[in-house]
Amino acid sequence: MNESSADIALIGLAVMGQNLVMNLCDNGFKVAVYNRTSAITQTFVEGPAKGMAVLPCDDLPAVVAALKKPRRVMIMVRAGGAVDGVIERLRGLLDAGDIVVDLGNSHYLDSERRGQALAAAGLRFVGCGVSGGEAGARHGPSIMPGGDPLAWPALAPILPKVAAQVDAEACCAWLGKGGAGHYVKMVHNGIEYGDMQLIAEAYHLMRDGLMSDGSPLSSDDMAARFAAWNDGVLDSYLIEITAQILAFKDTDGEPLVERILDTAGQKGTGKWTGICALELGIPVSLIGEAVFARCLSALHEQRQRAAILLSGPDRRLGTERNAFLADLEQALYGAKIASYAQGFMLMRAASREHGWDLDYGAIAMLWRGGCIIRSRFLNDIRDAYRAQPDLDNLMLAPFFAEALKKAEGPWRRVVATAVLAGIPVPALAAGLAFYDGYRTARLPANMLQAQRDYFGAHTYERLDRARGEYFHTDWTGEGGSVSAGTYNT
Amino acid sequence: MNESSADIALIGLAVMGQNLVMNLCDNGFKVAVYNRTSAITQTFVEGPAKGMAVLPCDDLPAVVAALKKPRRVMIMVRAGGAVDGVIERLRGLLDAGDIVVDLGNSHYLDSERRGQALAAAGLRFVGCGVSGGEAGARHGPSIMPGGDPLAWPALAPILPKVAAQVDAEACCAWLGKGGAGHYVKMVHNGIEYGDMQLIAEAYHLMRDGLMSDGSPLSSDDMAARFAAWNDGVLDSYLIEITAQILAFKDTDGEPLVERILDTAGQKGTGKWTGICALELGIPVSLIGEAVFARCLSALHEQRQRAAILLSGPDRRLGTERNAFLADLEQALYGAKIASYAQGFMLMRAASREHGWDLDYGAIAMLWRGGCIIRSRFLNDIRDAYRAQPDLDNLMLAPFFAEALKKAEGPWRRVVATAVLAGIPVPALAAGLAFYDGYRTARLPANMLQAQRDYFGAHTYERLDRARGEYFHTDWTGEGGSVSAGTYNT
Repeated sequence: MNESSADIALIGLAVMGQNLVMNLCDNGFKVAVYNRTSAITQTFVEGPAKGMAVLPCDDLPAVVAALKKPRRVMIMVRAGGAVDGVIERLRGLLDAGDIVVDLGNSHYLDSERRGQALAAAGLRFVGCGVSGGEAGARHGPSIMPGGDPLAWPALAPILPKVAAQVDAEACCAWLGKGGAGHYVKMVHNGIEYGDMQLIAEAYHLMRDGLMSDGSPLSSDDMAARFAAWNDGVLDSYLIEITAQILAFKDTDGEPLVERILDTAGQKGTGKWTGICALELGIPVSLIGEAVFARCLSALHEQRQRAAILLSGPDRRLGTERNAFLADLEQALYGAKIASYAQGFMLMRAASREHGWDLDYGAIAMLWRGGCIIRSRFLNDIRDAYRAQPDLDNLMLAPFFAEALKKAEGPWRRVVATAVLAGIPVPALAAGLAFYDGYRTARLPANMLQAQRDYFGAHTYERLDRARGEYFHTDWTGEGGSVSAGTYNT
Repeated sequence: MNESSADIALIGLAVMGQNLVMNLCDNGFKVAVYNRTSAITQTFVEGPAKGMAVLPCDDLPAVVAALKKPRRVMIMVRAGGAVDGVIERLRGLLDAGDIVVDLGNSHYLDSERRGQALAAAGLRFVGCGVSGGEAGARHGPSIMPGGDPLAWPALAPILPKVAAQVDAEACCAWLGKGGAGHYVKMVHNGIEYGDMQLIAEAYHLMRDGLMSDGSPLSSDDMAARFAAWNDGVLDSYLIEITAQILAFKDTDGEPLVERILDTAGQKGTGKWTGICALELGIPVSLIGEAVFARCLSALHEQRQRAAILLSGPDRRLGTERNAFLADLEQALYGAKIASYAQGFMLMRAASREHGWDLDYGAIAMLWRGGCIIRSRFLNDIRDAYRAQPDLDNLMLAPFFAEALKKAEGPWRRVVATAVLAGIPVPALAAGLAFYDGYRTARLPANMLQAQRDYFGAHTYERLDRARGEYFHTDWTGEGGSVSAGTYNT
C-alpha cells in the first residue's frame, strides 16, 4: 500500500458506497476503502473496481495512515448507531483539522450532535445528504453537504466533481452549518415520497378507473402516457422510470408491476419530514398523506377484509379517456407545485429556526440532476428564487401562479371524479385543499377560536381590532370570571 | 388549619384547578390548596370557594402537613418544566406510598419518566388526563388516569365521584401503567381537533358556498341547522355549542363569530398525536389535516395576498339548500367515524407498543360525558368494542359499516362539490381518502415498490409468491449485482 497517498477514504461498501468509490476514481481521486466484512472489500477490489485507484484497508488505522492531510474520511453505513460507532473509533485516530463526512440518511439532529462532539475534539464534521440511488452514486449524484464551514475548502475540489452536472453546474453546494445538509436531504426525500405518491395515484386512476368507454387503461397505454408526459411539464426522472416500469414484462410477457405486492416500505426520512413539519407548525400535508398512504398500504390483510365489508361506488370515472388524461397531467403538475411549495415552506421555517440562511435557489439547482426528484421543473423553482430570494411561497411566484391558474380547473375535475368513483387520491386531494386554503382570505378558523373560547376560555382576537388584543365572551352566561389569558371585555 | 385532615390536595389554582377544587368539595372532600401566587389562593378562598371545605396553604410543606395518609397530591400547573419543579419539591416532603397525580396536558413520555423517577423514591405517580374545560372541571369532567397501579385503590373513592356521570356510570376508568392516561388524553385531544375541523369545514361550506338559489346561509340558518343536527346522529357537545356560537350576537345585533379573527391557536396535543401516528406508522390523516389547517390559518397575512394572486372558482355549490345540508350531515357523520377509527387504531398500536392492554370500550365510555368530544356516538363505539374487544378497526363493526354505507354517497357528493367550488375541506377529504384506501384490496403501492426497486434496489414481494420472499429486477439492464436486501432472482 502506498502510504499517505489517498485523497479521500470511504467506509462502508454497500451498494451506494461501492458506486461512489468508482465515481471518485473515474474523477481522478485515489480512494482508501474499508468495510466491516473484509470479504466484501476484496470482492469489490477484485471485481467492479479492478484497475481503479482503490486502496483496500483492513482496519481504520490503515485507512487513516493511507490518507493525505487534512484527512477526509467519508462514512456510508446504515444511519443510526453504526455511524456513531465508526465516528467513535475514528475520533481516537484522527488529528485536529481532519474531516469526517457522514453520507448516510442521518437525522439532522444526529448530525448537529455529532458535529458538536467532533468539534470539541478539533475535528471537522460534515453531514452530507446524497441522493440518486446506485446509478446516481455511480455516475453523479446530488450532494447536499452542511456542517463545519471550515471543512468545505477541503471538500470543494472533490464533491462537486463527482456530483451530477446540469448545464455545466454541479449538483452540489454548501448548504449551511450544523445539520443543514441532512435537513435538506430529509426534505428532498419527503418531496420524493410526495412525487411517488402522486404518480401512484395517477396510475391507480388509470388502472382501476373506468373511462366513458367502460374500460380502464392497459399497461402499455399507461406506459405510453407516462412517456408522453415526460416530454411536457412533468418531465422528470420518476415519470420516466414509471413509463419503463409499466412497459416492463415478466417472463410470460405480462406486465411485471401488476404482480408486485401493493405494500410499500418506508425508511425514516418521509416520517421525519412529517414530524418536523408538525413541530414547526408548517402545513406539509401532501407529504404527510404520502407517508400515511404507505402506512395504509401495509395493512394488506385488513384491506382484503374491508374490501368485502365496506361499500363504495363502481370506479366509473365516466369521462372520455383523452380528456381525462389531459386533466390528469395538469392535476399532477398542480399538486407537484403545491407539494414543493410546502417543502420549501418547511425549509424556510427550519432555516429561521436554526439560523442556516438556506439558499433556496441553490437547493433547487442541486436537485436538478443526479437525484430521484430531478426534473425540468426544478429549473423553474431555481429561477423563481433567483428572481425573488425572499419569496414567501413558491405558489406566489408569477410563473407558478400562472401555472396553477391553468392547472386548478383540471385538478379539481380529477379529484372530484376520483372522489365520486371511490378511488382514493389522498395526495392529489390534500394538495388541492392546501392550495384552496392558502388562497382563502377568510378561513373558518374563527369558528375554532369561538369554540375554544366557549369551552376553555382561551380568548380570541377580532378582525375589527388590532392584533394582540384578546377577548373572552361568556357565551352561555354561566362562565366564570377566570380567563386562560389576558383579555378585555 | 385542621392538621392532617384534608382528603386530597390540589396545586395550581388557574381556571381548571379552581373549578376542580369546588367540584371535589361538592362531593364531600376536604381539599388542601396551594398556588404559587398566594393572592390567587386568597381570592379563591374568599370568593368562589367561600364556605367550602378548602384549606388554603402558604407553601408545599403546609400542603403535605394538611393531608391524611397516604397523601394524595394533585398537580394542575402548566405542562412542562413547571410540573417537574413541583414534583421535585414534593419529592423531598412526601413519604413512601404517597401519591402524586399530574392532571395537566403532559406528554405521555414525560409521565413515563416521572413515574419511573418517583417510583425510585418510593412514591406513586399517576399521569391523569382531564377534559371538559372549566365547566367540565366544575360539574364533572372526563378523567383518564394511568400510571402506578398501586395508586388506584387510593384514588378510586375520589376521582370517579367528581367525574361526569352518564347512565349511572362514571366517566373515569383506570387505563393502564406508565403514560397510558396521558396517551389516551392526547388522542382525545387529537380527535377533538378533528371534530372541530370537520365542523369548521361544514360551517365554511354553509357560510361561503352559494346554493342553487345563489346565496349562502345566514348565521341564524346555520345555527338552526346545527341545532337540528344535535337531535340526530351528530348529537354532541361540539355541535351543540356551535349552534349557540352561531346564534350569539355582538352588542350591535350582528353575529359575533363573524368578527373573530380566523387564526386558530394550537396547544401541543394535536401536534403530538400527529407525531405519535407518524412514529408508529398509523395513518391518522384526518387529525393530521386538522392540525395543518390550524397552521395554515396562522398565515393570515400571506393568505390575504394569495387570495388576490391565486385563482379559483366562484364558490358555487349549485345544489339545492336542503339536499346539500342533508348530504352534509351524512358527510360529517362518515368523516367522524373515519376519524375515530383512526384514533382507535393509534391507541391500539400504542397499547401493543407499550404493553398497556387498553380497554377501548372503557375509553369510549369515559369520553361519553364531561369532555369536549362527548356525544351519543360514543355509546355506539363502546357497544362495538364490548361486542368485539379485538376489533381490528371500528369501521369493520357491523353498526359502523352500515352507517358508512349510508353516509359514503352523500360524503362523496359534499367533497366533490367543495373541491369544484374551491372551498377547502381538508379533513372531510382526508377522511374519505382514508375510507376509500382502507377498503381498497389493491392499492397502487406496487408502483411505489417497483420505483424503489428501480432506483434503489430495495427489492419487492410478489402477489403470486409467499410473503417474506424478496425479488429484485434489473429494470434497465444496467443495474449492478449488489442489492439493498436479500433477494432471489
